[in-house]
Amino acid sequence: MNFSERSLELHKQKRGKLEIHSTFPLETREDLSVAYTPGVAQPCLEIAKDKNLAWDLTIKGHSVAVVTDGSAVLGLGNIGPEAGLPVMEGKAILFKHFANIDAYPICLDVHDVDGIVAAVKAIAPGFGGINLEDIAAPVCFEVERRLVEELDIPVMHDDQHGTGVVVTAGLMNALKVVGKKIDEVRVVISGAGAGGMGVTHLLFEAGVKQLTMVDSRGIIALGREGMNRYKDELAAKINPEGKTGSLANALKDADVFIGVSQPGVLISEMVKSMAKDPIIFALANPVPEIMPEIARVAGAAVVATGRSDFPNQVNNALAFPGIFKGALDGRIRKITSAMRLAAAVALAGMVQHPTSEEIMPSVLDKSVADVVAEAIKRAA
Amino acid sequence: MNFSERSLELHKQKRGKLEIHSTFPLETREDLSVAYTPGVAQPCLEIAKDKNLAWDLTIKGHSVAVVTDGSAVLGLGNIGPEAGLPVMEGKAILFKHFANIDAYPICLDVHDVDGIVAAVKAIAPGFGGINLEDIAAPVCFEVERRLVEELDIPVMHDDQHGTGVVVTAGLMNALKVVGKKIDEVRVVISGAGAGGMGVTHLLFEAGVKQLTMVDSRGIIALGREGMNRYKDELAAKINPEGKTGSLANALKDADVFIGVSQPGVLISEMVKSMAKDPIIFALANPVPEIMPEIARVAGAAVVATGRSDFPNQVNNALAFPGIFKGALDGRIRKITSAMRLAAAVALAGMVQHPTSEEIMPSVLDKSVADVVAEAIKRAA
Repeated sequence: MNFSERSLELHKQKRGKLEIHSTFPLETREDLSVAYTPGVAQPCLEIAKDKNLAWDLTIKGHSVAVVTDGSAVLGLGNIGPEAGLPVMEGKAILFKHFANIDAYPICLDVHDVDGIVAAVKAIAPGFGGINLEDIAAPVCFEVERRLVEELDIPVMHDDQHGTGVVVTAGLMNALKVVGKKIDEVRVVISGAGAGGMGVTHLLFEAGVKQLTMVDSRGIIALGREGMNRYKDELAAKINPEGKTGSLANALKDADVFIGVSQPGVLISEMVKSMAKDPIIFALANPVPEIMPEIARVAGAAVVATGRSDFPNQVNNALAFPGIFKGALDGRIRKITSAMRLAAAVALAGMVQHPTSEEIMPSVLDKSVADVVAEAIKRAA
Repeated sequence: MNFSERSLELHKQKRGKLEIHSTFPLETREDLSVAYTPGVAQPCLEIAKDKNLAWDLTIKGHSVAVVTDGSAVLGLGNIGPEAGLPVMEGKAILFKHFANIDAYPICLDVHDVDGIVAAVKAIAPGFGGINLEDIAAPVCFEVERRLVEELDIPVMHDDQHGTGVVVTAGLMNALKVVGKKIDEVRVVISGAGAGGMGVTHLLFEAGVKQLTMVDSRGIIALGREGMNRYKDELAAKINPEGKTGSLANALKDADVFIGVSQPGVLISEMVKSMAKDPIIFALANPVPEIMPEIARVAGAAVVATGRSDFPNQVNNALAFPGIFKGALDGRIRKITSAMRLAAAVALAGMVQHPTSEEIMPSVLDKSVADVVAEAIKRAA
């Protein structure tokens, strides 16, 4: 059986991936009197006096809601909140496994900015943080902006910022492999959705000077068709001369391709047209923009994907557990770009001698989350 | 240490009572490829084709949201959503322990009918059922009515209907102990909130003919001060002659006192004024309307409370796990009063020979939930 078949089979057998466990014993009447009534009234009364005590006396201090509306799940598109559940459950178990955070999937049946913001604000009291996930652009940008402003717990749209952190970390190490400098390379980003925006913003913070963003209609440029407010803002900054053209045009002599877009958009000829020792991050999930072996044959010096079954896994699982662990442990209210850049630097630093086959720490390495968490707290 | 101190201490030590566990292994790259990307895309795609498959492939089929706005927590009143968390976590671990249902606390920062309904509808796709909890009357009635009508998963306000089931079961057995018939006794209900309404409605279904409801201002009657739409409806039905008076007046010669109200409202003199062999259910939590030893000294034949540390625990924990287990296993969309009455009969039937010290099965008995679940499914 391949991964798809095994995954489907195991989901059927286990009925999903999550279980709730009690940390309190429940075997005797005394146990019930402590866990439930009458004893439970005491922690309630303490929190009623000072609601900050919910952080110490309940799940709040170690819990994150993994929130989606199912509008942009993996690379599968708008498949709805129910169909997004397996991915949200997956994030939840990764949160637990890597950061000992108890995360719960919240799949929303509302899809506009006001509806999503209202629902998340409504459920916020029980959570220590909000991980927004797989919400389509441009709704996701405004949702995140408003929630960061209006809530008193950390909110992060992982598709933007988790992706930004792992790509920035990976690129730092890939550039060491090919001996190029971050402020001298030409980077092309394929995809102007959540991932593309998050990556672009953090790469700027990291020192990249030459950036071109391409969506399904070509290079983003003011006045072009298919723009939106967020693309306009970015185009004004990275493409003031109003360059237009296709992905193939953009990639000619470029040093780096970062795909957060669709399977198959990158073909051999484009890789061959890039500058010497091109770096390819083909991060579309589950099927990358180009298969790694094809990219290597076409001359790529470093190839990364988001998948567990290829080398150089540039996967958000390396970032989000540690980012939220740092935010929760440090009681950080807002996760800033300076914190995210610190996390990327720390993540890159975990690979002592980067090679073309190893630019990232292993996603299985359980020390990663602590390193990232420490970086977040230090930057706070 | 008493229960309050031990409870507070353990909540501090464990940081609440819940933990998320993964049912999938996560130790190898292959594990990640099955639990997460790329394998996870397959269950997503299956559910996208038929969203009913979420019941089989995700947590949905065995999960319940325990939803409160913190406006009527235990007998503690409007202490807010954060302060309600310990109780909701308590319900969640009871769901797991007794019915193997994975329940999660959702504490809402909205308090009006429209806000609560909108929030619950928004999060419904990820859950198999909604247990409304500790929401103040009369908001709770309209919230439940609308959610039952508008959602396609079972919704139950436990304070009303869980209480209705356990009180009805307990009263059936208490009446056996004193040798009285359900259609001949005079029952006085103290408390016109969620519990009082739920108990009254199910006792009617069970055959009680003479019922008086008393709130903090006395017997409810049309035209009296402090009424609301729900009290009016009930008063028209149970008090057509417009009787008025205090709890003391109502209890004179009554057979049964059922308190779902406030500590201390029932005093010895009132018990003494009741008919022979009075039955006292003093269910206010954590402090009952009268302490059991005082009620016994005053002549009560059977005394029940909601607490784990006295005999005859009439606690919702005997009902809600099994009711939702039956509803989830049977894919029941609406939990009706006929189903609840069947659950009460089944619950009462678990005590073969009721005595004044044993009218209910033990809350520790893990077979109760299955018996209740079967009754729910049979009645469906």
